[in-house]
Amino acid sequence: MNSTLELLANRHSVRAFSEQPITPEERQAILQATYRAPTAGNQMLYAIIEVDDPAVKQRLVETCDHQPFIAKAPLVLVFLADYQRWFDAFIHGGVRERCAAVGQEFRMPGPGDLFLASCDALIAAQTAVIAAESLGIGSCYIGDILENYEIHRELFHLPRYTFPVTMVCFGHPAPLTHQRRIPRFPEEFILHRNTYRRFGPEEQEAMFQPLMAARPSGHAFPEGVENIAQSLFFRKYVAPFSYEMTRSVEAMLKNWTPEED
Amino acid sequence: MNSTLELLANRHSVRAFSEQPITPEERQAILQATYRAPTAGNQMLYAIIEVDDPAVKQRLVETCDHQPFIAKAPLVLVFLADYQRWFDAFIHGGVRERCAAVGQEFRMPGPGDLFLASCDALIAAQTAVIAAESLGIGSCYIGDILENYEIHRELFHLPRYTFPVTMVCFGHPAPLTHQRRIPRFPEEFILHRNTYRRFGPEEQEAMFQPLMAARPSGHAFPEGVENIAQSLFFRKYVAPFSYEMTRSVEAMLKNWTPEED
Repeated sequence: MNSTLELLANRHSVRAFSEQPITPEERQAILQATYRAPTAGNQMLYAIIEVDDPAVKQRLVETCDHQPFIAKAPLVLVFLADYQRWFDAFIHGGVRERCAAVGQEFRMPGPGDLFLASCDALIAAQTAVIAAESLGIGSCYIGDILENYEIHRELFHLPRYTFPVTMVCFGHPAPLTHQRRIPRFPEEFILHRNTYRRFGPEEQEAMFQPLMAARPSGHAFPEGVENIAQSLFFRKYVAPFSYEMTRSVEAMLKNWTPEED
Repeated sequence: MNSTLELLANRHSVRAFSEQPITPEERQAILQATYRAPTAGNQMLYAIIEVDDPAVKQRLVETCDHQPFIAKAPLVLVFLADYQRWFDAFIHGGVRERCAAVGQEFRMPGPGDLFLASCDALIAAQTAVIAAESLGIGSCYIGDILENYEIHRELFHLPRYTFPVTMVCFGHPAPLTHQRRIPRFPEEFILHRNTYRRFGPEEQEAMFQPLMAARPSGHAFPEGVENIAQSLFFRKYVAPFSYEMTRSVEAMLKNWTPEED
């Protein structure tokens, strides 16, 4: 196993950071690796907002489901799907005039552009995570940045055709952080061959088996909760942050739906 | 620079593959690394469809904007945002009955869940890309999998709460493939600090400068096209595949919009 495969195999999320700062050289190494991430047609349909203002970090603690460790992360990067940069370039570059001259319809960015840009943003984010990992710097994705779209839009002065699709906190891991290796579903429940297959109740029992086995002994489900599916449903899927996430994304999607113009 | 940073710095897309097969051990190394990719709350909101049926590959050549090299890739992985697996687990796990018992509203997956699942899928995809790179195996993202949603749904028998959000072709690079290092925008146009900033015409000229400088000498824009913004607009942004991408994504989004139930 080469050293890259080794770090991918051993990587886990880090939410407790040591006092050790991220040096300017480490920060640059992470960012320079990120800029080389694959991007659709070299369009670079993403942008990064580095958050180093403590007041902004504190705001993100609140808007991202109340996670105080965000404020303690020495490096916080918000990854945006960004079609605004090209859109502005079209305007400044005289595209509307060219369209008029040749009879080409102009169009506003739509949901397809949003998804392609979101792909670029995530590909960049995971590249940053792996670059950091290679330097011994831990990281944690904050999916909750999908919530509170309107607040983040104001906080970061986001124009219409940008969307903060993920956020990553980076820092050297706190010492003595105990890390269990979190089990995943067995391969047959992730990997399909040529066609998607749904799983029945017995198969799902096998799917959840490694997760059940990894539960600390004596760690019972709460009163009235019978299994992992129910636990996940009540703990996350119908938690307020999940409702907020869908509300927020729906609000954002309106910006990218041409009918709304 | 450590070996991981080195491979991230030098990685480029590979669209021409040698005859050298991907060995079962290499395939397993890529997949095992992928399964360890970060995932929101360990929910593993993604699935992979490995396409090894030549007829299915050939269909993807056509549905993904006519790219014949897809059929020649020894390993083709489609990455799905997948909430179906948990949704089915909720049903099989008696969540509806628990909801009725405790007076909790049941809800269908929404756009927030779709985006969170898309994040998981992209994070997994880029992990696979980097794992492959560490083994000398090249790769190319196929963003065009966002097109033709209905055809892919039928082709892969996709249930409602899955979406093929990206695809990657893998293979050992063909020898003698000439690879220029493709320039990116300068850092100041990708990285913002605490707040997003838009760029005016002069700044955008600086932004495009490295791309202009990298154009082969004598490589003029086509008749009537004056700059990179116009070139990108006419070549990609208003190409049929871009319209199809937004049409396809809009069709898919209807599945994830609770109002449509």
